[in-house]
Amino acid sequence: MTEAAIRTPVVGPERKFHIIDTDVHERAELAALVPYLEPMWQKYITDFGWVPERNLPYAQFAAGGLDRADAKLPDGRPGGSDLGLVRKQLLDEYDIDYAVLTGWLDASALHPGWPEFKTALMTAYNDWQIEEWLDRDQRLLGSIHVNAHDPAGAVREIERLADHPKMVQAIMYIADKAYGDPFFLPIFEAAARNNLPVGFHHSENSPTAFGYHRYFVEWHTLVPQVFMSTIISLIFNGVLDKFPELKIIMIEGGFTWAPHLMSRADQQFKQLHSEVPWVKRMPSQIIRDQVRFATQPTEEMSLERFMSLLEWLESDELFCFSTDYPHWDFDSPYEALPLGLPVELKRKIFCENAQALYKKIPALVG
Amino acid sequence: MTEAAIRTPVVGPERKFHIIDTDVHERAELAALVPYLEPMWQKYITDFGWVPERNLPYAQFAAGGLDRADAKLPDGRPGGSDLGLVRKQLLDEYDIDYAVLTGWLDASALHPGWPEFKTALMTAYNDWQIEEWLDRDQRLLGSIHVNAHDPAGAVREIERLADHPKMVQAIMYIADKAYGDPFFLPIFEAAARNNLPVGFHHSENSPTAFGYHRYFVEWHTLVPQVFMSTIISLIFNGVLDKFPELKIIMIEGGFTWAPHLMSRADQQFKQLHSEVPWVKRMPSQIIRDQVRFATQPTEEMSLERFMSLLEWLESDELFCFSTDYPHWDFDSPYEALPLGLPVELKRKIFCENAQALYKKIPALVG
Repeated sequence: MTEAAIRTPVVGPERKFHIIDTDVHERAELAALVPYLEPMWQKYITDFGWVPERNLPYAQFAAGGLDRADAKLPDGRPGGSDLGLVRKQLLDEYDIDYAVLTGWLDASALHPGWPEFKTALMTAYNDWQIEEWLDRDQRLLGSIHVNAHDPAGAVREIERLADHPKMVQAIMYIADKAYGDPFFLPIFEAAARNNLPVGFHHSENSPTAFGYHRYFVEWHTLVPQVFMSTIISLIFNGVLDKFPELKIIMIEGGFTWAPHLMSRADQQFKQLHSEVPWVKRMPSQIIRDQVRFATQPTEEMSLERFMSLLEWLESDELFCFSTDYPHWDFDSPYEALPLGLPVELKRKIFCENAQALYKKIPALVG
Repeated sequence: MTEAAIRTPVVGPERKFHIIDTDVHERAELAALVPYLEPMWQKYITDFGWVPERNLPYAQFAAGGLDRADAKLPDGRPGGSDLGLVRKQLLDEYDIDYAVLTGWLDASALHPGWPEFKTALMTAYNDWQIEEWLDRDQRLLGSIHVNAHDPAGAVREIERLADHPKMVQAIMYIADKAYGDPFFLPIFEAAARNNLPVGFHHSENSPTAFGYHRYFVEWHTLVPQVFMSTIISLIFNGVLDKFPELKIIMIEGGFTWAPHLMSRADQQFKQLHSEVPWVKRMPSQIIRDQVRFATQPTEEMSLERFMSLLEWLESDELFCFSTDYPHWDFDSPYEALPLGLPVELKRKIFCENAQALYKKIPALVG
């Protein structure tokens, strides 16, 4: 396996490992969801004019806004709107074996207003996702979007779709909420009962410790804070100990902060464990056992730094490759990770770690 | 220099390096400050009953609360109230050459209400600090406390005390504020003009990305977030580029997050620099040039991990040893850092890095 083989597009027998992309965004036009809604909820969009809430006081500071400029459609639709282009720019271009769709319009990251409508919207979104995407390409896998503001409705949606062979996870978008609060517990219970991992995806509605800073680059640099806060909330409120078979994956939050979080949380737990007696393992062990990280956005680093980071984590099973196609900070499988990674490690990061997480993915041979 | 020599208390010629402790808390009783106030401000305490604001929905989860249990006075006064005990438990016990006092009651971390009173309170506090502490022990160095909510008043206070030979820095406590906002710029300008570094100290009034979590251990694990946010705010709003000679020190925020922050900020800056054209250097370079970290609270780690962390930072000049005496998570100079550190590195972390930062500290020979 030469570096050239991973640096240039290869297909079939030339590449010695498969690729599972754990973060690909399909995109609905809001109007496209209307037929999937009950008439009483259709009115919320068609008559009352509901549109998705936004919190961010900036747009994405990139030539195509949120999207790669070349991923937008000629007719003006945003990236991820057209299966043909997703095939051309991602699935075929990089010979992706499987891609986990992570969606758009996730109600969990929106405001809590109109919770029953949002729950119905997630059901419509999931049905649209299956019909327009999963049923049309063998390589696409889906996420069960749930409205975290309505845990009972979220549980119903998980139960409704848990047996779908291509729905590989329940997904919530990270926002300004500490998901370790008992309010959300039924969601995790339903995911665990159905052997589904829970994905947590980056959202625009996530503050930093100081809320929303003056510039986009400040906010975007500090996005990992909500991921750290989410993991700490789930650990110290006992959610991950209560469901020790449950796995979660942090999507689009990066990973270079994981060594720090493990180290800091272990130190605090050593000193303060009697405050949270329901936590039974060291936080770093809980993370190794139950938390995974999608790799995008990766930070450029030398092979030595990447390997020292894995040594600190004491595991090479925590990272799952992702591109975040079609967004502006897309990570190419040919360029995102350092050159010179051992091929066995590439197999893990590009494929095997995601296969171990998403057990519905069929065996990939070779 | 054997490990035994640093693991057991040594004095004078036996120890081959000096120790500067960059975070020691002296403590005033509020009543003790009243004589230092103008009569019009005295009334705010004596008649109106003002007491320091608190934000934290918990107390410190430790046997002595905020303090080491053995640092409290028999008469019930909190740790840091008595110079004799500070000498016995810290300065003499560990043969500390210099200790930088970092105070209590810092107005910058309190709510903005009654700003003129708070500014007067800082003046009183600083005068009390000089008379009761700096004038009574050669080893003690002081911090000019300022009220960040009143930048003009803060500037006056810096100018008033900048020439005091033992006042080595201006200090603000980190809170829920992004200090890179232009509102605060005069404070940094005054510090830079007077060749004083600015210390940022941990405070109880600092939220995480989700505010205040359900348990103390969650909040305390996530305290580094406000430190990260503060550095990012100062970098991307151009404060550190505007005053390239200005140095800042992050006190009681730990340091294992620094490699991540450098890496993430560099990556974002590469992609988004045109949003902040006033930033002239890579964020990691700005941090290496101008940001220092007091070591407490350290996390237990192997020598290998500690050294790999320094390699990631590409500098061994960023860390300044601190104990946080008399608080519950005090770091002993004999135990806080990994065994086996090269003696030249010990010299830097325990002494030389702080000497380079605090230029008023007299030369330490030997």
